[in-house]
Amino acid sequence: MSKDPKIPDATIERISLYSRPLELLLSGGTMVVSSERLAELCEVNPAQVRKDLSYFGEFGVRGIGYGVRDLLVEIKKILVSDREWRMAIVGLGNMGMALVQHENFNKRGYRFVVAFDPDPGKVGSELPNGLVIRALKELPFLIEELEVEVGVIATQPGQAQTVAEILIAAGIKAILNCSPIQIRQQESCLVENVDFTVNLDNLAYHLGKKD
Amino acid sequence: MSKDPKIPDATIERISLYSRPLELLLSGGTMVVSSERLAELCEVNPAQVRKDLSYFGEFGVRGIGYGVRDLLVEIKKILVSDREWRMAIVGLGNMGMALVQHENFNKRGYRFVVAFDPDPGKVGSELPNGLVIRALKELPFLIEELEVEVGVIATQPGQAQTVAEILIAAGIKAILNCSPIQIRQQESCLVENVDFTVNLDNLAYHLGKKD
Repeated sequence: MSKDPKIPDATIERISLYSRPLELLLSGGTMVVSSERLAELCEVNPAQVRKDLSYFGEFGVRGIGYGVRDLLVEIKKILVSDREWRMAIVGLGNMGMALVQHENFNKRGYRFVVAFDPDPGKVGSELPNGLVIRALKELPFLIEELEVEVGVIATQPGQAQTVAEILIAAGIKAILNCSPIQIRQQESCLVENVDFTVNLDNLAYHLGKKD
Repeated sequence: MSKDPKIPDATIERISLYSRPLELLLSGGTMVVSSERLAELCEVNPAQVRKDLSYFGEFGVRGIGYGVRDLLVEIKKILVSDREWRMAIVGLGNMGMALVQHENFNKRGYRFVVAFDPDPGKVGSELPNGLVIRALKELPFLIEELEVEVGVIATQPGQAQTVAEILIAAGIKAILNCSPIQIRQQESCLVENVDFTVNLDNLAYHLGKKD
Protein backbone atom coordinates (compact mmCIF):
# COMPACT_ATOMS: atom_id res chain seq x y z
CA MET A 1 0.00 0.00 0.00
CA SER A 2 1.40 3.35 -1.02
CA LYS A 3 1.97 5.85 1.77
CA ASP A 4 3.36 8.47 -0.57
CA PRO A 5 3.29 11.78 1.30
CA LYS A 6 2.53 13.57 -1.99
CA ILE A 7 -1.02 12.20 -2.16
CA PRO A 8 -3.22 15.30 -1.98
CA ASP A 9 -5.43 15.79 1.08
CA ALA A 10 -8.36 16.29 -1.33
CA THR A 11 -7.79 12.72 -2.61
CA ILE A 12 -7.84 11.38 0.97
CA GLU A 13 -11.11 13.22 1.62
CA ARG A 14 -12.68 11.90 -1.59
CA ILE A 15 -11.51 8.35 -0.82
CA SER A 16 -13.28 8.71 2.53
CA LEU A 17 -16.42 9.94 0.74
CA TYR A 18 -16.34 7.01 -1.72
CA SER A 19 -16.70 4.61 1.20
CA ARG A 20 -20.14 6.05 2.16
CA PRO A 21 -22.15 4.86 -0.91
CA LEU A 22 -20.09 1.66 -1.01
CA GLU A 23 -21.36 0.83 2.50
CA LEU A 24 -24.92 1.43 1.33
CA LEU A 25 -24.43 -0.67 -1.82
CA LEU A 26 -22.92 -3.50 0.22
CA SER A 27 -25.76 -3.49 2.75
CA GLY A 28 -28.20 -3.51 -0.20
CA GLY A 29 -26.52 -6.59 -1.67
CA THR A 30 -24.80 -4.94 -4.67
CA MET A 31 -21.60 -6.83 -5.55
CA VAL A 32 -20.07 -4.76 -8.36
CA VAL A 33 -20.08 -1.03 -9.13
CA SER A 34 -18.68 0.82 -12.15
CA SER A 35 -16.52 3.91 -11.70
CA GLU A 36 -19.29 5.82 -13.55
CA ARG A 37 -21.93 4.77 -11.01
CA LEU A 38 -19.66 5.35 -8.01
CA ALA A 39 -18.75 8.76 -9.42
CA GLU A 40 -22.43 9.61 -9.87
CA LEU A 41 -23.23 8.59 -6.28
CA CYS A 42 -20.38 10.77 -5.00
CA GLU A 43 -20.96 13.65 -7.43
CA VAL A 44 -17.47 13.67 -8.91
CA ASN A 45 -16.45 12.67 -12.41
CA PRO A 46 -15.48 9.06 -13.20
CA ALA A 47 -11.92 10.04 -14.22
CA GLN A 48 -11.48 11.55 -10.75
CA VAL A 49 -12.54 8.29 -9.07
CA ARG A 50 -10.09 6.30 -11.20
CA LYS A 51 -7.26 8.79 -10.63
CA ASP A 52 -7.81 8.93 -6.84
CA LEU A 53 -7.80 5.14 -6.54
CA SER A 54 -4.79 4.79 -8.85
CA TYR A 55 -2.57 6.39 -6.17
CA PHE A 56 -3.00 3.25 -4.12
CA GLY A 57 -2.62 0.51 -6.71
CA GLU A 58 -4.72 -1.43 -9.18
CA PHE A 59 -8.38 -1.82 -8.32
CA GLY A 60 -11.29 -3.09 -10.35
CA VAL A 61 -11.60 -4.87 -13.67
CA ARG A 62 -11.69 -2.88 -16.90
CA GLY A 63 -15.17 -2.88 -18.46
CA ILE A 64 -16.73 -4.47 -15.38
CA GLY A 65 -16.06 -2.29 -12.37
CA TYR A 66 -15.04 -2.59 -8.76
CA GLY A 67 -15.98 -5.37 -6.38
CA VAL A 68 -17.92 -3.44 -3.73
CA ARG A 69 -16.70 -5.42 -0.72
CA ASP A 70 -13.07 -5.56 -1.90
CA LEU A 71 -12.94 -1.86 -2.67
CA LEU A 72 -14.41 -1.00 0.73
CA VAL A 73 -11.84 -3.20 2.49
CA GLU A 74 -9.03 -1.55 0.49
CA ILE A 75 -10.30 1.96 1.26
CA LYS A 76 -10.47 1.17 4.97
CA LYS A 77 -6.88 -0.08 4.77
CA ILE A 78 -5.77 3.07 2.93
CA LEU A 79 -7.45 5.30 5.48
CA VAL A 80 -6.27 3.13 8.37
CA SER A 81 -9.94 3.07 9.38
CA ASP A 82 -9.93 -0.74 9.46
CA ARG A 83 -9.22 -0.53 13.18
CA GLU A 84 -10.67 1.22 16.23
CA TRP A 85 -9.49 4.72 17.15
CA ARG A 86 -9.86 5.67 20.80
CA MET A 87 -11.06 9.23 21.33
CA ALA A 88 -11.50 11.69 24.19
CA ILE A 89 -14.06 14.47 24.05
CA VAL A 90 -13.57 17.73 25.92
CA GLY A 91 -16.62 19.97 26.35
CA LEU A 92 -20.11 18.54 26.86
CA GLY A 93 -22.28 21.45 25.83
CA ASN A 94 -24.78 21.03 22.97
CA MET A 95 -22.07 20.32 20.40
CA GLY A 96 -20.29 17.79 22.61
CA MET A 97 -23.56 16.03 23.46
CA ALA A 98 -24.43 15.87 19.75
CA LEU A 99 -21.03 14.35 18.98
CA VAL A 100 -21.08 11.63 21.64
CA GLN A 101 -24.52 10.55 20.40
CA HIS A 102 -23.56 10.77 16.70
CA GLU A 103 -24.16 7.32 15.30
CA ASN A 104 -21.57 7.50 12.52
CA PHE A 105 -18.59 7.59 14.87
CA ASN A 106 -19.01 4.15 16.41
CA LYS A 107 -20.11 2.72 13.05
CA ARG A 108 -16.78 3.80 11.51
CA GLY A 109 -14.56 2.71 14.40
CA TYR A 110 -14.19 6.06 16.16
CA ARG A 111 -15.00 5.39 19.80
CA PHE A 112 -15.26 7.89 22.64
CA VAL A 113 -13.60 6.23 25.63
CA VAL A 114 -13.47 9.22 27.99
CA ALA A 115 -15.16 12.62 28.36
CA PHE A 116 -13.98 15.80 30.09
CA ASP A 117 -15.51 19.18 30.85
CA PRO A 118 -13.83 22.32 32.22
CA ASP A 119 -17.03 23.09 34.20
CA PRO A 120 -16.82 21.46 37.69
CA GLY A 121 -20.64 21.48 37.76
CA LYS A 122 -20.72 18.93 34.93
CA VAL A 123 -18.06 16.59 36.32
CA GLY A 124 -19.61 13.34 37.55
CA SER A 125 -22.66 13.44 35.25
CA GLU A 126 -23.32 10.35 33.17
CA LEU A 127 -23.65 10.64 29.38
CA PRO A 128 -26.15 8.66 27.24
CA ASN A 129 -23.26 6.44 26.10
CA GLY A 130 -22.50 5.50 29.71
CA LEU A 131 -19.34 7.60 30.15
CA VAL A 132 -19.06 9.75 33.26
CA ILE A 133 -17.72 13.29 32.72
CA ARG A 134 -14.26 13.69 34.26
CA ALA A 135 -12.37 16.75 35.47
CA LEU A 136 -9.68 18.33 33.27
CA LYS A 137 -7.05 17.72 35.96
CA GLU A 138 -7.49 13.98 35.42
CA LEU A 139 -6.86 14.35 31.68
CA PRO A 140 -3.10 13.65 31.49
CA PHE A 141 -3.43 10.46 33.56
CA LEU A 142 -6.57 9.18 31.79
CA ILE A 143 -5.29 9.89 28.26
CA GLU A 144 -2.30 7.67 28.97
CA GLU A 145 -4.17 5.04 31.00
CA LEU A 146 -6.91 4.62 28.36
CA GLU A 147 -4.51 4.85 25.38
CA VAL A 148 -6.44 7.70 23.78
CA GLU A 149 -5.16 8.70 20.34
CA VAL A 150 -7.56 11.40 19.13
CA GLY A 151 -8.86 14.42 21.06
CA VAL A 152 -12.16 16.05 20.09
CA ILE A 153 -12.66 19.64 21.28
CA ALA A 154 -16.20 20.96 21.68
CA THR A 155 -15.67 23.59 24.37
CA GLN A 156 -16.59 27.26 24.35
CA PRO A 157 -14.35 29.11 21.87
CA GLY A 158 -12.41 30.90 24.64
CA GLN A 159 -11.30 27.56 26.13
CA ALA A 160 -10.42 25.69 22.93
CA GLN A 161 -6.77 26.76 22.54
CA THR A 162 -5.94 25.99 26.19
CA VAL A 163 -7.65 22.61 25.97
CA ALA A 164 -5.69 21.83 22.78
CA GLU A 165 -2.45 22.57 24.59
CA ILE A 166 -3.46 20.36 27.54
CA LEU A 167 -4.29 17.51 25.11
CA ILE A 168 -0.99 17.91 23.25
CA ALA A 169 0.98 18.02 26.51
CA ALA A 170 -0.75 14.75 27.44
CA GLY A 171 0.62 13.15 24.25
CA ILE A 172 -2.34 13.47 21.87
CA LYS A 173 -1.20 13.46 18.23
CA ALA A 174 -4.48 14.30 16.46
CA ILE A 175 -7.24 16.77 17.31
CA LEU A 176 -10.66 17.27 15.75
CA ASN A 177 -11.63 20.82 16.71
CA CYS A 178 -15.39 21.43 16.63
CA SER A 179 -15.26 24.73 18.50
CA PRO A 180 -15.85 27.86 16.42
CA ILE A 181 -12.26 29.12 16.62
CA GLN A 182 -9.28 27.79 14.71
CA ILE A 183 -6.68 26.03 16.86
CA ARG A 184 -3.13 27.15 16.14
CA GLN A 185 -1.25 24.33 14.46
CA GLN A 186 1.49 22.59 16.41
CA GLU A 187 4.49 20.67 15.10
CA SER A 188 3.71 17.61 17.16
CA CYS A 189 -0.04 17.30 16.54
CA LEU A 190 -2.40 17.10 13.56
CA VAL A 191 -5.37 19.44 13.84
CA GLU A 192 -8.57 19.32 11.77
CA ASN A 193 -10.79 22.34 12.29
CA VAL A 194 -14.47 21.68 11.56
CA ASP A 195 -15.95 24.86 10.14
CA PHE A 196 -19.57 24.75 8.98
CA THR A 197 -19.28 28.15 7.34
CA VAL A 198 -16.94 26.65 4.73
CA ASN A 199 -19.86 24.44 3.64
CA LEU A 200 -22.18 27.44 3.70
CA ASP A 201 -19.73 29.50 1.63
CA ASN A 202 -19.74 26.69 -0.93
CA LEU A 203 -23.56 26.71 -1.07
CA ALA A 204 -23.62 30.52 -1.25
CA TYR A 205 -21.13 30.51 -4.12
CA HIS A 206 -23.24 28.09 -6.17
CA LEU A 207 -26.53 29.81 -5.24
CA GLY A 208 -24.98 33.13 -6.26
CA LYS A 209 -24.05 31.70 -9.67
CA LYS A 210 -27.69 30.75 -10.26
CA ASP A 211 -28.98 34.31 -9.85
CA MET B 1 -15.80 38.65 -11.60
CA SER B 2 -15.45 35.26 -13.20
CA LYS B 3 -18.30 32.82 -12.64
CA ASP B 4 -16.68 30.07 -14.68
CA PRO B 5 -18.46 26.83 -13.79
CA LYS B 6 -15.19 24.91 -14.27
CA ILE B 7 -13.65 26.35 -11.09
CA PRO B 8 -13.06 23.31 -8.87
CA ASP B 9 -15.07 22.97 -5.66
CA ALA B 10 -11.75 22.45 -3.83
CA THR B 11 -10.71 25.95 -4.97
CA ILE B 12 -13.95 27.42 -3.63
CA GLU B 13 -13.36 25.68 -0.30
CA ARG B 14 -9.79 26.94 -0.08
CA ILE B 15 -10.85 30.48 -1.02
CA SER B 16 -13.30 30.28 1.89
CA LEU B 17 -10.49 29.07 4.18
CA TYR B 18 -8.17 31.90 3.07
CA SER B 19 -10.68 34.40 4.42
CA ARG B 20 -10.30 33.09 8.00
CA PRO B 21 -6.68 34.21 8.68
CA LEU B 22 -7.30 37.36 6.62
CA GLU B 23 -10.05 38.34 9.08
CA LEU B 24 -7.64 37.79 11.98
CA LEU B 25 -4.87 39.78 10.26
CA LEU B 26 -7.25 42.63 9.52
CA SER B 27 -8.53 42.78 13.10
CA GLY B 28 -4.89 42.75 14.27
CA GLY B 29 -4.08 45.75 12.06
CA THR B 30 -1.98 43.97 9.40
CA MET B 31 -2.34 45.74 6.03
CA VAL B 32 -0.35 43.53 3.63
CA VAL B 33 0.28 39.78 3.49
CA SER B 34 2.52 37.79 1.13
CA SER B 35 1.21 34.67 -0.61
CA GLU B 36 3.92 32.78 1.33
CA ARG B 37 2.60 33.97 4.70
CA LEU B 38 -1.05 33.43 3.73
CA ALA B 39 -0.16 29.94 2.49
CA GLU B 40 1.62 29.17 5.76
CA LEU B 41 -1.38 30.33 7.82
CA CYS B 42 -3.69 28.13 5.72
CA GLU B 43 -1.28 25.19 5.45
CA VAL B 44 -1.24 25.03 1.68
CA ASN B 45 1.64 25.89 -0.63
CA PRO B 46 2.09 29.44 -1.96
CA ALA B 47 1.68 28.34 -5.60
CA GLN B 48 -1.73 26.93 -4.65
CA VAL B 49 -2.81 30.27 -3.15
CA ARG B 50 -1.73 32.14 -6.28
CA LYS B 51 -3.37 29.59 -8.60
CA ASP B 52 -6.67 29.61 -6.67
CA LEU B 53 -6.86 33.41 -6.70
CA SER B 54 -5.86 33.60 -10.37
CA TYR B 55 -9.21 32.03 -11.35
CA PHE B 56 -10.86 35.25 -10.29
CA GLY B 57 -8.55 37.91 -11.71
CA GLU B 58 -5.42 39.81 -10.76
CA PHE B 59 -4.84 40.33 -7.06
CA GLY B 60 -1.84 41.60 -5.17
CA VAL B 61 1.39 43.28 -6.17
CA ARG B 62 4.37 41.18 -7.24
CA GLY B 63 7.12 41.23 -4.59
CA ILE B 64 4.89 42.94 -2.04
CA GLY B 65 1.81 40.84 -1.47
CA TYR B 66 -1.91 41.23 -1.09
CA GLY B 67 -3.71 44.11 0.57
CA VAL B 68 -5.48 42.30 3.43
CA ARG B 69 -8.66 44.36 3.36
CA ASP B 70 -8.92 44.39 -0.46
CA LEU B 71 -8.36 40.65 -0.74
CA LEU B 72 -10.97 39.94 1.93
CA VAL B 73 -13.51 42.14 0.12
CA GLU B 74 -12.74 40.35 -3.17
CA ILE B 75 -13.07 36.91 -1.58
CA LYS B 76 -16.42 37.83 -0.06
CA LYS B 77 -17.56 38.98 -3.51
CA ILE B 78 -16.35 35.75 -5.13
CA LEU B 79 -18.14 33.64 -2.52
CA VAL B 80 -21.21 35.89 -2.61
CA SER B 81 -20.74 36.09 1.15
CA ASP B 82 -20.73 39.90 1.02
CA ARG B 83 -24.46 39.81 1.76
CA GLU B 84 -26.76 38.20 4.31
CA TRP B 85 -28.15 34.72 3.71
CA ARG B 86 -31.42 33.92 5.47
CA MET B 87 -31.55 30.42 6.91
CA ALA B 88 -34.08 28.09 8.50
CA ILE B 89 -33.07 25.38 10.93
CA VAL B 90 -35.07 22.17 11.29
CA GLY B 91 -34.39 20.05 14.39
CA LEU B 92 -33.50 21.58 17.75
CA GLY B 93 -31.80 18.69 19.51
CA ASN B 94 -28.22 19.07 20.73
CA MET B 95 -26.83 19.60 17.22
CA GLY B 96 -29.49 22.18 16.29
CA MET B 97 -29.00 24.05 19.56
CA ALA B 98 -25.23 24.08 18.98
CA LEU B 99 -25.76 25.47 15.48
CA VAL B 100 -28.13 28.32 16.41
CA GLN B 101 -25.66 29.44 19.08
CA HIS B 102 -22.60 29.03 16.82
CA GLU B 103 -20.99 32.45 16.71
CA ASN B 104 -19.41 32.07 13.26
CA PHE B 105 -22.71 32.00 11.40
CA ASN B 106 -23.87 35.52 12.21
CA LYS B 107 -20.32 36.85 11.91
CA ARG B 108 -20.18 35.61 8.31
CA GLY B 109 -23.65 36.75 7.29
CA TYR B 110 -25.50 33.45 7.75
CA ARG B 111 -28.55 34.31 9.84
CA PHE B 112 -31.15 31.92 11.24
CA VAL B 113 -34.50 33.66 10.77
CA VAL B 114 -36.80 30.75 11.65
CA ALA B 115 -36.60 27.42 13.51
CA PHE B 116 -38.73 24.29 13.18
CA ASP B 117 -38.95 20.99 15.02
CA PRO B 118 -40.94 17.87 14.11
CA ASP B 119 -41.59 17.28 17.85
CA PRO B 120 -44.84 19.04 18.88
CA GLY B 121 -43.48 19.11 22.46
CA LYS B 122 -40.76 21.55 21.38
CA VAL B 123 -42.99 23.87 19.33
CA GLY B 124 -43.47 27.22 21.09
CA SER B 125 -40.19 27.11 23.07
CA GLU B 126 -37.92 30.12 22.76
CA LEU B 127 -34.30 29.69 21.66
CA PRO B 128 -31.32 31.63 23.09
CA ASN B 129 -31.29 33.74 19.89
CA GLY B 130 -34.90 34.81 20.51
CA LEU B 131 -36.55 32.64 17.83
CA VAL B 132 -39.59 30.61 18.82
CA ILE B 133 -39.69 27.01 17.52
CA ARG B 134 -42.44 26.61 14.92
CA ALA B 135 -44.33 23.52 13.74
CA LEU B 136 -43.34 21.78 10.48
CA LYS B 137 -46.81 22.40 9.02
CA GLU B 138 -46.05 26.16 9.10
CA LEU B 139 -42.85 25.60 7.12
CA PRO B 140 -44.06 26.20 3.54
CA PHE B 141 -45.77 29.47 4.49
CA LEU B 142 -42.91 30.78 6.68
CA ILE B 143 -40.15 29.89 4.20
CA GLU B 144 -41.87 32.05 1.60
CA GLU B 145 -42.98 34.81 3.99
CA LEU B 146 -39.48 35.19 5.53
CA GLU B 147 -37.66 34.79 2.20
CA VAL B 148 -35.51 31.92 3.50
CA GLU B 149 -32.83 30.75 1.06
CA VAL B 150 -30.89 28.07 2.94
CA GLY B 151 -32.26 25.16 4.99
CA VAL B 152 -30.16 23.58 7.74
CA ILE B 153 -31.16 20.07 8.80
CA ALA B 154 -30.25 18.85 12.30
CA THR B 155 -33.00 16.32 12.92
CA GLN B 156 -32.74 12.68 13.90
CA PRO B 157 -31.35 10.66 10.97
CA GLY B 158 -34.68 8.95 10.28
CA GLN B 159 -36.39 12.30 9.66
CA ALA B 160 -33.71 14.02 7.59
CA GLN B 161 -34.74 12.85 4.10
CA THR B 162 -38.42 13.74 4.67
CA VAL B 163 -37.47 17.16 6.04
CA ALA B 164 -35.23 17.75 2.99
CA GLU B 165 -38.16 16.99 0.70
CA ILE B 166 -40.44 19.36 2.65
CA LEU B 167 -37.81 22.13 2.39
CA ILE B 168 -37.34 21.56 -1.34
CA ALA B 169 -41.11 21.53 -1.95
CA ALA B 170 -41.21 24.87 -0.12
CA GLY B 171 -38.75 26.30 -2.66
CA ILE B 172 -35.44 25.98 -0.78
CA LYS B 173 -32.49 25.81 -3.22
CA ALA B 174 -29.65 24.99 -0.80
CA ILE B 175 -29.45 22.63 2.17
CA LEU B 176 -26.74 22.16 4.78
CA ASN B 177 -27.35 18.68 6.18
CA CYS B 178 -25.87 18.16 9.66
CA SER B 179 -27.76 14.93 10.36
CA PRO B 180 -25.69 11.73 10.26
CA ILE B 181 -27.27 10.41 7.05
CA GLN B 182 -26.58 11.57 3.52
CA ILE B 183 -29.50 13.35 1.85
CA ARG B 184 -30.20 12.11 -1.67
CA GLN B 185 -29.29 14.82 -4.17
CA GLN B 186 -32.10 16.55 -6.03
CA GLU B 187 -31.95 18.35 -9.37
CA SER B 188 -33.49 21.51 -7.98
CA CYS B 189 -31.49 21.87 -4.77
CA LEU B 190 -27.83 22.02 -3.72
CA VAL B 191 -27.03 19.77 -0.75
CA GLU B 192 -23.89 19.89 1.43
CA ASN B 193 -23.63 16.96 3.80
CA VAL B 194 -21.55 17.68 6.92
CA ASP B 195 -19.75 14.49 7.87
CA PHE B 196 -17.32 14.65 10.80
CA THR B 197 -16.01 11.17 10.04
CA VAL B 198 -14.45 12.53 6.82
CA ASN B 199 -12.28 14.76 9.03
CA LEU B 200 -11.53 11.83 11.32
CA ASP B 201 -10.59 9.63 8.35
CA ASN B 202 -8.15 12.34 7.29
CA LEU B 203 -6.58 12.40 10.79
CA ALA B 204 -6.49 8.60 10.93
CA TYR B 205 -4.77 8.43 7.53
CA HIS B 206 -2.02 10.81 8.61
CA LEU B 207 -1.68 9.22 12.08
CA GLY B 208 -1.44 5.83 10.41
CA LYS B 209 1.40 7.08 8.20
CA LYS B 210 3.37 8.11 11.31
CA ASP B 211 3.34 4.61 12.82
